[in-house]
Amino acid sequence: MEISPSGFYEILSPRCTVLISTVDKEGRANAAPFSFVTPVSSNPPLLLYASAPQRHTLANTREIGDFVLNIVPEALLDRLWVCSKAFPKGVSEIEQAGLTERKSKKVKSPSIEECAGWIECTLEFEKEAGDHILVVGRVVHAECKDEFARKGEFDISRAKPVMHIRGKRFAVAERVVQVKGE
Amino acid sequence: MEISPSGFYEILSPRCTVLISTVDKEGRANAAPFSFVTPVSSNPPLLLYASAPQRHTLANTREIGDFVLNIVPEALLDRLWVCSKAFPKGVSEIEQAGLTERKSKKVKSPSIEECAGWIECTLEFEKEAGDHILVVGRVVHAECKDEFARKGEFDISRAKPVMHIRGKRFAVAERVVQVKGE
Repeated sequence: MEISPSGFYEILSPRCTVLISTVDKEGRANAAPFSFVTPVSSNPPLLLYASAPQRHTLANTREIGDFVLNIVPEALLDRLWVCSKAFPKGVSEIEQAGLTERKSKKVKSPSIEECAGWIECTLEFEKEAGDHILVVGRVVHAECKDEFARKGEFDISRAKPVMHIRGKRFAVAERVVQVKGE
Repeated sequence: MEISPSGFYEILSPRCTVLISTVDKEGRANAAPFSFVTPVSSNPPLLLYASAPQRHTLANTREIGDFVLNIVPEALLDRLWVCSKAFPKGVSEIEQAGLTERKSKKVKSPSIEECAGWIECTLEFEKEAGDHILVVGRVVHAECKDEFARKGEFDISRAKPVMHIRGKRFAVAERVVQVKGE
């Protein structure tokens, strides 16, 4: 079945979906879901999110120079959806969704208490790509909740992170398989 | 639990994992798994993969100017792993893994017959980011196998695409959930 090129992301799915939390220079918090997200470098540790130019997350990242990726467990899916709505700049989606701000360890942007893990980043550079801006951040701190760790590692079978397919449809990551060969 | 910044990608997981197939100017095919992959723009349709500088996939993308993302169903996990091994340039991982080359519709790079879907791209631009190169491609053709489609859409519950966690550990996407709110 052919898929229109502009709908290609539906088959490049499901995609890790995170809430990105930021703050503006008046100290007002923001959070929004992003699924165009990927690690891009190990040393230095860099990751990337692609943002439409008008997003408040991008404006705040530029203003303050940092942002936090919050890992979203299945239990928070409906709250993630609230954060996707178009609130005016300055309204905290974290509050609107009934979530709690948590002070980050190394950056000014807040984290979200109820999430399963947090990746704190400082802005490294940005680059235009089509109708989005690639925002590359350097990871300065990473942490997961102890209840979602096992043997010193993040355990997706416990955290059940959500991944976007399209619209209101998500997949839940939980079943782990192991390669058999060497 | 704190995680070292260089290991941050373990909590940004599981990640969509694809086989990228390419060809060199002698016509020799190559395929390798990548999990640092994301869509980045809808119009024009652009996606990105991050590659270590020495990868054959990157060399071929530069030589020929195109590449194909192949969506990997759970049934092919062990074959994907074979493609991750370091074969000399010119050896086809597609053949080594017992997979079949398939002529692509719009690009010179071959596709992999056994995969669940194919996204054909031409090289748009590249940009250095830490120890990797961001390779941005323009989607010129996208297609999924009819057996993995339902009501005109790609159905992950049928395709069960694999997603990387770390090392030999992968997650399988299959359980779909729907947001309840408006």
